[in-house]
Amino acid sequence: MNDLGRNAANYAALTPITLLRKAAAVYPDHPAVVYGGIRRSWAETATRCRKLASALRKAGFKAGGTVSVLATNTPELYEAHFGVPMAGGVLNAINCRLDAKTVAYILDHCEARFLITDREFSDTAKAALEMADGGPVVIDIDDPAADGGELLGDLDYEAFLETGDADFPWAVPEDEWDAISVNYTSGTTGNPKGVLYHHRGAFMNAIGNTLEWDMGRHPVYLWTLPMFHCNGWCFPWTIAAKAGTNVCCRKVSAKAIYDAIADEGVDHLCGAPIVLGFMIHADETEVREFPHRCRVMTAASPPPASVLQEMAARGFDVTHVYGLTEVYGPAIACAWNREWDALDAEEQARLKSRQGVAYLLQEDAMVADPETLEPVPRDGKTLGEVFMRGNITMKGYLKNPEATAEAFAGGWFHTGDLGVMHPDGYIELKDRSKDIIISGGENISSIEVENVLMAHPAVAVAAVVAKPHEKWGETPCAFVELARGQTVTGEDLIAWCRERMAHYKAPKHVVFQTIERTSTGKIQKGPLRDLAKTVSS
Amino acid sequence: MNDLGRNAANYAALTPITLLRKAAAVYPDHPAVVYGGIRRSWAETATRCRKLASALRKAGFKAGGTVSVLATNTPELYEAHFGVPMAGGVLNAINCRLDAKTVAYILDHCEARFLITDREFSDTAKAALEMADGGPVVIDIDDPAADGGELLGDLDYEAFLETGDADFPWAVPEDEWDAISVNYTSGTTGNPKGVLYHHRGAFMNAIGNTLEWDMGRHPVYLWTLPMFHCNGWCFPWTIAAKAGTNVCCRKVSAKAIYDAIADEGVDHLCGAPIVLGFMIHADETEVREFPHRCRVMTAASPPPASVLQEMAARGFDVTHVYGLTEVYGPAIACAWNREWDALDAEEQARLKSRQGVAYLLQEDAMVADPETLEPVPRDGKTLGEVFMRGNITMKGYLKNPEATAEAFAGGWFHTGDLGVMHPDGYIELKDRSKDIIISGGENISSIEVENVLMAHPAVAVAAVVAKPHEKWGETPCAFVELARGQTVTGEDLIAWCRERMAHYKAPKHVVFQTIERTSTGKIQKGPLRDLAKTVSS
Repeated sequence: MNDLGRNAANYAALTPITLLRKAAAVYPDHPAVVYGGIRRSWAETATRCRKLASALRKAGFKAGGTVSVLATNTPELYEAHFGVPMAGGVLNAINCRLDAKTVAYILDHCEARFLITDREFSDTAKAALEMADGGPVVIDIDDPAADGGELLGDLDYEAFLETGDADFPWAVPEDEWDAISVNYTSGTTGNPKGVLYHHRGAFMNAIGNTLEWDMGRHPVYLWTLPMFHCNGWCFPWTIAAKAGTNVCCRKVSAKAIYDAIADEGVDHLCGAPIVLGFMIHADETEVREFPHRCRVMTAASPPPASVLQEMAARGFDVTHVYGLTEVYGPAIACAWNREWDALDAEEQARLKSRQGVAYLLQEDAMVADPETLEPVPRDGKTLGEVFMRGNITMKGYLKNPEATAEAFAGGWFHTGDLGVMHPDGYIELKDRSKDIIISGGENISSIEVENVLMAHPAVAVAAVVAKPHEKWGETPCAFVELARGQTVTGEDLIAWCRERMAHYKAPKHVVFQTIERTSTGKIQKGPLRDLAKTVSS
Repeated sequence: MNDLGRNAANYAALTPITLLRKAAAVYPDHPAVVYGGIRRSWAETATRCRKLASALRKAGFKAGGTVSVLATNTPELYEAHFGVPMAGGVLNAINCRLDAKTVAYILDHCEARFLITDREFSDTAKAALEMADGGPVVIDIDDPAADGGELLGDLDYEAFLETGDADFPWAVPEDEWDAISVNYTSGTTGNPKGVLYHHRGAFMNAIGNTLEWDMGRHPVYLWTLPMFHCNGWCFPWTIAAKAGTNVCCRKVSAKAIYDAIADEGVDHLCGAPIVLGFMIHADETEVREFPHRCRVMTAASPPPASVLQEMAARGFDVTHVYGLTEVYGPAIACAWNREWDALDAEEQARLKSRQGVAYLLQEDAMVADPETLEPVPRDGKTLGEVFMRGNITMKGYLKNPEATAEAFAGGWFHTGDLGVMHPDGYIELKDRSKDIIISGGENISSIEVENVLMAHPAVAVAAVVAKPHEKWGETPCAFVELARGQTVTGEDLIAWCRERMAHYKAPKHVVFQTIERTSTGKIQKGPLRDLAKTVSS
């Protein structure tokens, strides 16, 4: 029945661009972006995004092309999240802590036509541009707050904007399946993979975030999570959807966070556990009081009970989520259940430390046998791989049909993470496939051992990896960073673990050292595994 | 690039069915449906919906067919909103106040295979079935609370459910564009038109309602708005999305509303102004106190300042929305702007009486010339037709390609309502096209005259229609229902109007009488226009 088909009146492509247009139309004067002395309304921000789109097109940029940005959480990167798609382009936000060689690889792989780069990262950008085969047009962000560096391009971002037309049309993609961005996974081995997002998925996760967080109108959101990480979990678009205020932040620190909360009224922020650490371990001179509650969404590793309690006491309500680059950031959340209100803090923390259930707008999640895709029993014990599917899942890997096919085999996205399914349908991660320790044929979850170690008052951070062992195959080796002013011996920690878990799971070795994290707060276990091999038995 | 196409891992059809599945999975024990002595959890409700779907299929129902329901706001009609689509069917919820002839027309037009009918409406159903050409399978809802009537079919709803399988698979439509329901417009002239909704649109408006209302988790929603009206503005699906509680209500009255708020903790409800009238004009013995605020979404006619103030004093916060059957119920909302907080109550009411801006999830709305589709200036004065477009717009009219083409001409849905666009982008309705009064070549908005009349303390309800006039073409004729215990003369009211608006807009005749409303709270102006012709000049 042709008369009941799609037409311009009853169908519109789902795209985050609409969210900016609406915010600017309904709340033109509401503050959209705050950064140092800069305060721009939604009308102003929308105009700047339209000018960026227009300037790109005038400079020869063509729909379908890629614009890379090497920057931190400044207004320019926020604007690129709308301006680039509005030019029909694909945004490639590059992790500014990557080495030049990787940046060069990324620029070439995604065939960047433009590179918008912040002065502070000019060393990396310059070296990367020298190594890269392609030669993107370079536009400099010359932020007075940037630390050193030099200007590399012929164009300054602000001057470039001025070449654009403020009335650039609100063009939307013809197909909601069109790519909106490409984000490169950190890739501990081999080259990073380019994860393609489409407009439909970006829109869905933008809205999904509002639903999971039961977010009201006009949130004041602090940019502690890098926008180059899964497009800031799609929060650039989420904040537009709720006509909120983006408080940008060049360098995340305890002082910056508390000041933003107290001075700007920040009531929402996201971050890896390291951000929670900032807030708890802040110097007392940096801590500010504030009259409201601030909500924190955290991922990467489950917050222990002690952290949740300390956070609550300081005015923070923590929501625990889980995701990967391939699912637009978080796509599983530990949805709170009112029945848990009556439980004690320890038990609440235990429940909250689970990763949870698929986002309302993500179709499904399961824990299953990686070969047969047969779901594991809901016993909270049987280990399986975590799978997801639905509209908050990538298009695929750019120019990598093999990896794409592998990731989607059987009609589910293979996360590579191992977990269990609890009787109430909540997923709890146990490990990355490659981080599991197999000792005497038994699987040992490195996370489980780490959680026991972290519960010891002297331990600030613990990372447990497999150490090859002639007899057992592998044994757990623990790397421990001590809490400020604390001491403990390796023997004591091993004894602590043996009291609290099966003996074979307790670490056989404990190494005390500072533990490095990636920009997203994850501990890179590859180097630790190499180090573990050298620890004498 | 085929490897970046849609597959089962990264694409799922948008459908409200998912919302029920999620509510049942994450909050299985949370109360979903409350009705008299019945209290069913989301797990129980989901099971009943799956059984309904299964029972239909076992009884020979085929995907793509239609199931009609003639019932009021009871759990059965709620379940049909999920069970019928889960069987691959199209739900046709029939206005239970329609006459038998119209019901017969509807049953035949949508080719109903099944009719689920409440005993209370058996007179209508029986007569309709006798008149109808088709012979749907009849299933009786035998609610003990139903007033009289008889059982018509061979099957009782509860017995029918028992034939279904509780494990019926969570089938979703292959295409999100598939029809989910067909709702017949009241159609003041000619046969009613069958407005087809699709899964995508129903999903979008279900989520859209949560966004416009900034709805938190677990709302307690009172069913004052009929579910047979635009599928209850999609709220059956909205309440599932937020895992709320549906408090069903067979007969809406002031006592029922206040009791539900005080006893069940109802915090959200929708309704035409008549429902607001119930709450304000309730007998003091019926009014109950409650500790929380209750949010009310209202449409059909703008709430006057006095009503908003009285509502606020009684604990209600009113949101004003606008829509039509063709856009799934409300698709425009008077989004509150914080800058208005500082204004006085009168000014706030004036701003709130405007219909507002397109839903976040509805693409666009405009006021434009109905011929050229050229938008009117944003001056709050120039009259034009209201147009909408986007994902919250019907598939089209069932078996009526001409009407569909007309409704969608130029790529916009033609609402047939007249309004103005204010400088801030908010739309304000002035009239239905057919309700406008043209006097001496000047357009007179019947709503404008009605609002002036309603501001008079003696006037409870006013309806103004055109009366043919030899010299002027038409003149305004007012029908007025007096407020309890009040008196006023027609001359006084005419003088009142002349003091407050252009003289040619003031009514030339005033008729005092009770003013009938449709089940959705709208005043049917057709009969009044006929009556106006007989009023002696």
